[in-house]
Amino acid sequence: MKLARILAAGLVAGALAMPVAAQMTVEDQIETRKATYQFISWNMGKIKAQTVDGSVPFDARQMMAAANAIAAAANSGMSALYSPESAMDKAENTRLKPEFFTQPEKAREVGVNFVMEANKLQEVAVTGDQKALAQQFARVGQTCKACHDDFRAK
Amino acid sequence: MKLARILAAGLVAGALAMPVAAQMTVEDQIETRKATYQFISWNMGKIKAQTVDGSVPFDARQMMAAANAIAAAANSGMSALYSPESAMDKAENTRLKPEFFTQPEKAREVGVNFVMEANKLQEVAVTGDQKALAQQFARVGQTCKACHDDFRAK
Repeated sequence: MKLARILAAGLVAGALAMPVAAQMTVEDQIETRKATYQFISWNMGKIKAQTVDGSVPFDARQMMAAANAIAAAANSGMSALYSPESAMDKAENTRLKPEFFTQPEKAREVGVNFVMEANKLQEVAVTGDQKALAQQFARVGQTCKACHDDFRAK
Repeated sequence: MKLARILAAGLVAGALAMPVAAQMTVEDQIETRKATYQFISWNMGKIKAQTVDGSVPFDARQMMAAANAIAAAANSGMSALYSPESAMDKAENTRLKPEFFTQPEKAREVGVNFVMEANKLQEVAVTGDQKALAQQFARVGQTCKACHDDFRAK
């Protein structure tokens, strides 16, 4: 077993051994993840309005607050909101495909990409550069779309 | 009035004067604010589990992530999610009392207190002090309760 693999296995074991909170019910997982994505979507909408659409005057401080919100949500440990029992083949009120769990490497990749681009969004927002923020907003949006395309039912 | 309170009040006033995004529908306001509070509640629950209940082992990094999430939400400009038309005397699916708008000074005070205590929560989480975090968690919880007592129907 290569060292990198051993280390990765150790990280996974550590993550499994260290729950963030008591086990949630499937219903709570679904409701909370939908709420979290709605919170993210609301904040994405503010950035879109002020950088892409121009429908609202650009305000750098508001953009920092919105980017902070998105990054904080992305880093909040959302994996706790997913379990195989919470996919649409087993649960109600969700469009999460079971492929999210049968393709764990792909699921991990979309999750990691979202977190990375959200963190970058926060960094770009600090600069107050409207154009750069519009571009980074698009990159975050691409990570949302990638997950929807693969793991959310129409 | 302490300086921090004056500054926080100024932030709230500034948020009211400067629209963050295009005007939301009343339904969107209600749905988004409920989602945001659920996101906050989920993260408060993690801190409670690891500092008050002890039902989950204390993990300082997880506590920082949870506190960041709560503070980022508190600072996300939630006042945009409130309009007189979105109170329970005029709208469905909400327990928000109309007093939230007829007693604006009191409403502003509970809002400012929440933001200030949430920001303090973030500061305390960085120290990794479990006991101090439990105490600050309780202070944040008191600001939640104060608003529920005055402005949320049973």
